Parts: sequence; C-alpha cells; structure tokens
Amino acid sequence: MTRQALIDQIRSKKSFLCVGLDPDVSKIPPHLLHEQDPIFAFNKAIIDATKAYAVAYKPNLAFFECHGTKGWESLQKTIDYIPKDIFTIADAKRGDIGNTSGYYAKTFFETMGFDSVTVAPYMGEDSVTPFLEYPNKWVILLALTSNKGALDFQTIKDSEGTALYKTVLKRSSAWGSPENLMFVVGATRADELAEVRKIVPEHFLLVPGVGAQGGSLEEVAHYGMNADCGLLVNSSRGIIYASSGADFAEKAGQEAHKLQQEMAAILATAKFL
Amino acid sequence: MTRQALIDQIRSKKSFLCVGLDPDVSKIPPHLLHEQDPIFAFNKAIIDATKAYAVAYKPNLAFFECHGTKGWESLQKTIDYIPKDIFTIADAKRGDIGNTSGYYAKTFFETMGFDSVTVAPYMGEDSVTPFLEYPNKWVILLALTSNKGALDFQTIKDSEGTALYKTVLKRSSAWGSPENLMFVVGATRADELAEVRKIVPEHFLLVPGVGAQGGSLEEVAHYGMNADCGLLVNSSRGIIYASSGADFAEKAGQEAHKLQQEMAAILATAKFL
Repeated sequence: MTRQALIDQIRSKKSFLCVGLDPDVSKIPPHLLHEQDPIFAFNKAIIDATKAYAVAYKPNLAFFECHGTKGWESLQKTIDYIPKDIFTIADAKRGDIGNTSGYYAKTFFETMGFDSVTVAPYMGEDSVTPFLEYPNKWVILLALTSNKGALDFQTIKDSEGTALYKTVLKRSSAWGSPENLMFVVGATRADELAEVRKIVPEHFLLVPGVGAQGGSLEEVAHYGMNADCGLLVNSSRGIIYASSGADFAEKAGQEAHKLQQEMAAILATAKFL
Repeated sequence: MTRQALIDQIRSKKSFLCVGLDPDVSKIPPHLLHEQDPIFAFNKAIIDATKAYAVAYKPNLAFFECHGTKGWESLQKTIDYIPKDIFTIADAKRGDIGNTSGYYAKTFFETMGFDSVTVAPYMGEDSVTPFLEYPNKWVILLALTSNKGALDFQTIKDSEGTALYKTVLKRSSAWGSPENLMFVVGATRADELAEVRKIVPEHFLLVPGVGAQGGSLEEVAHYGMNADCGLLVNSSRGIIYASSGADFAEKAGQEAHKLQQEMAAILATAKFL
C-alpha cells in the first residue's frame, strides 16, 4: 500500500485506528473453541465488527506461532480475510543478517501478503534494508517501545547525551523514506513523541499502549500528529476483549467505534478533514 | 537440556560445533526438489551426515517461514528428527513485551520442543525473562553480532565509555544465570571476545561467523574458551553447501568432521579432554 492510499483511507474513515489481533485462546469466548479454527473464527468476527472504523490490522505473530503449523494456517486465513484497502501489519519483530532478513521479507510480503512488518533495530542497517526493497511495502522499526524494559537500553545516552532510540531514528531514517519506513513509539511516553517529531517530522508512527497500557489518545495526537496525520494508534485488548461473552464482536465494534469517533474529533480540530 | 549435559556432550564428542540449518531452496541440490518435502529431505541428510561431529543444530527460522505453513511443517519434522541428546537452537531472533514473549517461549519450548531460542535485547528485561521461566531451556541473547550492521548501534558508547553490547551483557546476566542464558558474539571480532569474557566469564557463547564470514576458529578459542569450554561455534554455509551435487551430505559430513578434529585438538591443548 502507498503512503497516499493510507492517508486517503484515514481521511475517508476519519480514523487512524489500528486494531491489534492478539487471539489468545485463554481469553477468546469459550463458545468459539468448538469451531474448527477458533482463532480464525474469532478474528473474522472481530474484523467484520471493526472494519468500518479501522485503517489497519496488526496480527501479533506470537499468538499464532504458539499453535505451530495450525497457527500459521489461521494467520494466513486472517490476512486473506482482511479487506485489501486496509493496511496490514505483521507484528513479528524480526531482524537478522541481510540474507536472512531477505527471507523474512519474502515471508511476510510475498508468501503471506502483508503490507508491513515490525522489525527490531539491534542488528543495524543490513538487517533492515532487505525489507525496504519491496515497492509499496513497509518496515515499522522499533524505536521507543511501551514496555517497562524500554528503559533498559533504548534510553541509554551516548557520550553526546543522545538516547539510543533517537540514534535509531536518525540513522535508520537514512535507510528508507517516509514512503516505506514507519517507527514504533509507545504512547506511555507521550511527551517524548514531541522529541521524536523533531527527528522524523514526516514519518508515520505506530503507537501502541493507548488504553490497556495507559496512554492517552489526546496527548498522542497533540504531540505526534503531523500534516498527513502521521499516526496509527493501536488498540488490542481494549477492543478484542471488550467482552468474553457471545456479544464479543458487537462490543469490539462499539469500542472501535468509540475510538474512531474520538479520532474523528481530533482530526476535525486539526483541520485534517 | 542442562548445562552439564551440554558439557558432557562436548567432552564425549570432542567438539563444540553447532551446525546451522539454513535450507535455501535456491542452493540445495536440485535432485532434492523432486522430494515431497525437499527442505526436510535436505536437513535429514545433513543431520545424518554430521550428527557424530555436532553438539548443536541451529535451524534458521527465516528459511522455513518463507514457505508459510509448509515451512513450519518442515521445521517441526526437522526438530523431531534431531537426536534428543543434541542441543537445538531456534534461530528466531524473537523478543516482544512480556505477554507476547511468553507466547514465543511457548512456541519454541512447548509446541516445537527446542532447547533454546535466540532473542534480541532491544526491548529489555520483560521481553527476555518469560523465556527464562522454563526449566532446562535457554535464551541465547544477541550481544555483538557478526554482520556489518553490528557497528550501527551495538558498539555505541555511553557517557561512561561503555559500548551498548557490554551493557547488554552486564544487565542481562542478572536476569538469568549461566544455566539458562547464553550470548551471541560474532567471530568476526575475535579480540572482542576477550572483552566479553571479562563481563561474562562463565556463560556459554554462541559464535557465528567462523568460515564463510571470515572468523578464525583458533582465535575464537584463544579468546573465548573458559573452563567448561563455554563455546558453541556455528558453521552453516561452509558445511551444508560444501557441495551442491549428489554428494552434498557426504561433503557436509567431511567439513563437519574437519572442524570437529580442529576442535578436538584445541580442546586437548586446553586440557579440557
């Protein structure tokens, strides 16, 4: 998907919502466990209920891989089921030496058909660039994550006082462009979004941690939005586990709609619509 | 597998060789492409030919995942085929927020039955510790990798002059113990192994980059070996693609045997045997 197509979708849906698909068999409604493929049945219902409000879906690979071959079947069915005009993110946190990253790129972009994949930066340029060679496909590189462990290494300052995540933003932005590279920046540190925007004013940011992990949508928009919106805000548990009953999809749709309406108001105030 | 069982195996086989299984369909012998599962057929032949000389096998996930569901079937068959007394490494470079890392741990340790998995440190402690909760299972954490991109972030010095990879070694060694935590340290920087050994004298190190990537086995042993050997030296392409003809397995066995004999000599000189 091109950057323009993503922006057009944000405009038409009045939303920058990404729905995280973390299908945990210990949390999905028990009645689905009798289905032939409970994980796909769950995802399908969630997608149907939320697709009017979401501009992106982000399946989290761990929740599929833990079921081995069957999990990969559920993942392929899920990605095939997502409407083609919605942006898809393989939340896979991959990254390895060049030749190997090339095969991961093939996995997610060719074999499975995702628009983008999350990549960890630790191994540097040649672990990232193989993903950037695919036209209209995207790398979403980890910069500042929303977990406690983000403080272990990502915020270490170098001899000039620059935090590691800022160096990641600076160096990696030369490897791609705002047309094929986004960054993960956690919403738990909304004020740091302003710092991020000084370094990468144009890139899209994928922002996890709104809702269950505690970040505020208004703050994220205040510090992180740019002229093209430039944000994909993810919510996983707050939407997909809004109810564990037979009404799980309906409740998921309601939560997604609620977030979309907040986003529409924010986009209108910012004169984006 | 326990640390002691690994050490016993090193002693009995007079080897600290890890064979990397990177089954690339563009490189495996053409006659195997007619097999029902060419990747497994290739791995099976390589394992049969090298298992007398190898103490560990390291399937590289990218080469399986790029085939989707079928690739995961080949991977499961491969791991099931490896003799149970040989250490197995899922070279997967995973790592995510705690809950997600927990599912990756389940994937590799429960669903697939690996002894260990490679993990990227960027997301910090809570992305690593879920893997450490499995008794007799191992995390192999990236510290200093063997690729060019290692110099982008891993060697950045903090305000006290400490390189990032050394901080990774220091902090993470408190999360686990030499009984469940190893580190990846590339052989392309053998002299830095001496620096690594000052920080983690007891831990096992997984050393890629010997052979095709240019590192020397003698240097690695000189700087990296400890009283328990403490090394797993990986070779992938140099063994598995020693020949692309019908004799590929025989040649792979010869290359593995050659490395094992070099290792036996090194272990004897070090009075480990």
